Amino acid sequence: MASRSFSSAYIADCVQGRLVGSDLEVDGIGTLANATSSQLSFLANSRYRSSLTTAKAGVVLVGEADLPLVPNSAIVVANPYLAYAKISQLYAGNQLSSGVAKSAAVAVDAVISSSAQICDGVVIESGAQIGDSVYIGPNSVIGAGAVIGNQTRIAANVSIYNDVQIGENCRIHSGAVIGADGFGFAPDGGRWEKIAQLGRVIIGNDVEVGAGTTIDRGALDDTLIEDGVKLDNQIQIAHNVIIGENSAIAGGCAIAGSTRIGKQCTIAGMSGVTGHLEIADGTHITAMTLVSRSITEPGAYSSGTAVEPHRQWKRNAVRFRQLDELAKRVSELEKLVEQLSSKDQD
Amino acid sequence: MASRSFSSAYIADCVQGRLVGSDLEVDGIGTLANATSSQLSFLANSRYRSSLTTAKAGVVLVGEADLPLVPNSAIVVANPYLAYAKISQLYAGNQLSSGVAKSAAVAVDAVISSSAQICDGVVIESGAQIGDSVYIGPNSVIGAGAVIGNQTRIAANVSIYNDVQIGENCRIHSGAVIGADGFGFAPDGGRWEKIAQLGRVIIGNDVEVGAGTTIDRGALDDTLIEDGVKLDNQIQIAHNVIIGENSAIAGGCAIAGSTRIGKQCTIAGMSGVTGHLEIADGTHITAMTLVSRSITEPGAYSSGTAVEPHRQWKRNAVRFRQLDELAKRVSELEKLVEQLSSKDQD
Amino acid sequence: MASRSFSSAYIADCVQGRLVGSDLEVDGIGTLANATSSQLSFLANSRYRSSLTTAKAGVVLVGEADLPLVPNSAIVVANPYLAYAKISQLYAGNQLSSGVAKSAAVAVDAVISSSAQICDGVVIESGAQIGDSVYIGPNSVIGAGAVIGNQTRIAANVSIYNDVQIGENCRIHSGAVIGADGFGFAPDGGRWEKIAQLGRVIIGNDVEVGAGTTIDRGALDDTLIEDGVKLDNQIQIAHNVIIGENSAIAGGCAIAGSTRIGKQCTIAGMSGVTGHLEIADGTHITAMTLVSRSITEPGAYSSGTAVEPHRQWKRNAVRFRQLDELAKRVSELEKLVEQLSSKDQD
Repeated sequence: MASRSFSSAYIADCVQGRLVGSDLEVDGIGTLANATSSQLSFLANSRYRSSLTTAKAGVVLVGEADLPLVPNSAIVVANPYLAYAKISQLYAGNQLSSGVAKSAAVAVDAVISSSAQICDGVVIESGAQIGDSVYIGPNSVIGAGAVIGNQTRIAANVSIYNDVQIGENCRIHSGAVIGADGFGFAPDGGRWEKIAQLGRVIIGNDVEVGAGTTIDRGALDDTLIEDGVKLDNQIQIAHNVIIGENSAIAGGCAIAGSTRIGKQCTIAGMSGVTGHLEIADGTHITAMTLVSRSITEPGAYSSGTAVEPHRQWKRNAVRFRQLDELAKRVSELEKLVEQLSSKDQD
Repeated sequence: MASRSFSSAYIADCVQGRLVGSDLEVDGIGTLANATSSQLSFLANSRYRSSLTTAKAGVVLVGEADLPLVPNSAIVVANPYLAYAKISQLYAGNQLSSGVAKSAAVAVDAVISSSAQICDGVVIESGAQIGDSVYIGPNSVIGAGAVIGNQTRIAANVSIYNDVQIGENCRIHSGAVIGADGFGFAPDGGRWEKIAQLGRVIIGNDVEVGAGTTIDRGALDDTLIEDGVKLDNQIQIAHNVIIGENSAIAGGCAIAGSTRIGKQCTIAGMSGVTGHLEIADGTHITAMTLVSRSITEPGAYSSGTAVEPHRQWKRNAVRFRQLDELAKRVSELEKLVEQLSSKDQD
Repeated sequence: MASRSFSSAYIADCVQGRLVGSDLEVDGIGTLANATSSQLSFLANSRYRSSLTTAKAGVVLVGEADLPLVPNSAIVVANPYLAYAKISQLYAGNQLSSGVAKSAAVAVDAVISSSAQICDGVVIESGAQIGDSVYIGPNSVIGAGAVIGNQTRIAANVSIYNDVQIGENCRIHSGAVIGADGFGFAPDGGRWEKIAQLGRVIIGNDVEVGAGTTIDRGALDDTLIEDGVKLDNQIQIAHNVIIGENSAIAGGCAIAGSTRIGKQCTIAGMSGVTGHLEIADGTHITAMTLVSRSITEPGAYSSGTAVEPHRQWKRNAVRFRQLDELAKRVSELEKLVEQLSSKDQD
């Protein structure tokens, strides 16, 4: 990775922090355990406080309370984890070289900002619009009439179908597919008649779409991903889903058609939400949960069972299939014991 | 999206429907809630009957019984949902511009129909055959010896491995991978020895393959996807699986090796079927179900537990791990109560 | 598929086996049920012994004990399944035609071995290094500074991000994405601040990565896939995960951030492991299991419930939500029955 370096005073300025100790050149970021004397580290969780005293990091981001424990320089901030996030971006190195690569194929009526970078092998179809400082990685395809907002970065091998709209400052990772047909078919005597998917996908600003994630176009209305939504890898968003602002969904989840996820929700990995549901703002779903009814109260929700040794699990799983019967046997016992007790009273 | 328009009389003809009311130009399709006076809508579910009276749609597809409620024009058909599906295709706009794009790389011995459209960046390897009116989207790759049947549409960034056969009138979405190696290894003292995957993938006619879906080639025999099968996004079909005619599988499912899914089955999202099983024709699997035994009787099948607030779920999940023991305690109680009752009778 | 043929004597030599019966030209491999008289088959499982007598295969790989049942020629080996795996590779046909295709775009400072094959549409960025006899399939993208070891094969439409390192003799299937950003964000008053992902992905030797599988780069330290690991299709490996030597993971699994999977583990399809866990060497996870705690003892582990008819499942699932209450009722009954029994003794 191209190596970069900033002074600790400059870094402190970037995060409105207070530099304590000597200024130094910081050429990278490391964990408390691994950071070198020319790197910055951070203490985000007081559980790791004990690692602080032995840390070799040249400078450490800390809250005021932990300052006395820092062995070398410190940058004192209110929220070290958030400050680390901001500083990490200095080292990310996403410079643009504006222009259209020789092997890219751009339709004559596509509109490409002169500050955009279009890499080798990219195909941009008729009428597409590419905003300022947009990066489109090698071999990605932008369909006819699609619109890509300013500062958005699209990695290699991404597929954007026709008429999709993506906002500003988004990041779309490799293998993502945005705007493929929703899964819509009308049953016709044993076979399936295709329903053409005539809606679009509309994505807001500051949205991240992970590698291999697929977002289907709407059947008639549009599929909507609101501002600030973060989608991890290999997520499936079906047609006409709406994902509310700043919700974050982890890898391997699937949201079925026409479901509306509220704002500020978090959905842990490999969870599913069935179709035509409403999930309240501020709902949190734990990993591998199937949500098959609407959720109206914010809070944490789960389904499934907890992992256990297979042999033991097998015995319990057999009993699960007898659970209704078991519950009825318990009710029957309660009745019998009640009778025995009352006789006993006599 | 390119705008298209058809007369309501023409549309009625297309679906053998009866136009009631004045003829008009229909420039799109909308839901009952959103359709404008120049659009067509449909009433597929009598639950939405009340929306009919307030609908602004210029023309509505309805069954005979609902005709009196239609405010403007109507097209009366036996099955409004099926008619909608057929009409939607008029508005889909999948016209071809035959020919091979300049930046496509086509092997000299590949056979390409003159009516096919091969887009920019496509690579077609030695001996591949591309049928009439086939569309191959930008940057897709067709491996050596692969055969693509007439009218089939392959979107951008699709990977078709060597010797794969795809029938007529299929639709393969972006990111799909057809014919990669099945997951086959022989254990060899702690390491794994690769088993070359020498079979093919054979796909019938009228098959849809969703974005990011992967279908592995067979180990020795072929993997088979029969006519009319519909696969949603991000489905994994392992080597030597057979999917029977007109079965439909929703997003995120995985079918393990050598399993045979019958005809007319439906599998809801995120379900899995383990290897070497047989699933009867007409089987329906609900979402996030793991099928780990063969199913011989058609019908609906499920596994898992229902979503509930996390705190409550946690208590129940702990009890699940004690379920076998609980069942034994209930049996013991039954014995004791039986003894007490019989003594009581004495 | 290009047809190949080898003498049975040559094949026997390759696997240090003993040819019994006449030598013949073997032009392929088939199952016991389907192999023709010019093909080789194998008996790997004594359950299929009865198929041996009716097999038409020209030559069959068997253990010593099954030799008397072979109708035609035999090759006697200690482990027929392992011998089949080795022989299958003779028929795989992965010959290279060294050189860089005309339409590939290779940075001037990339280092490409003269024995490597770079296919059409490939993009190789600045400073990347491509080893001897490497194959890079059509339209794949190799990011800046990435290193691909000798004999590694990368299929079509693969995305390798900058600075990823892949060892020797690996196989990466289409649609795989290696080195995309891990899912890291710091909460900032309702919105999410991006954490730049500054680590790399380091992959050892003899690793297979299935179609559509995604392996994220580390946040600060690297994500590590050790030698001999086999990953099936559509697996998600999050940032800073470590997968130990020779572990094999089946399709559709996801491993969350910073989790360490031991050596020689197997994880069946659609399972998940949550973040920051340690899974012991030699752990086996059954299909669709969620592992949400560290595993310190090797062995088999499971979660979930077993598939059953939906109507019956529904009744049991309702009872699951009352399980804690049911267990308390059973405890109460035990107390009451105990009291009744002791009175009864009086």
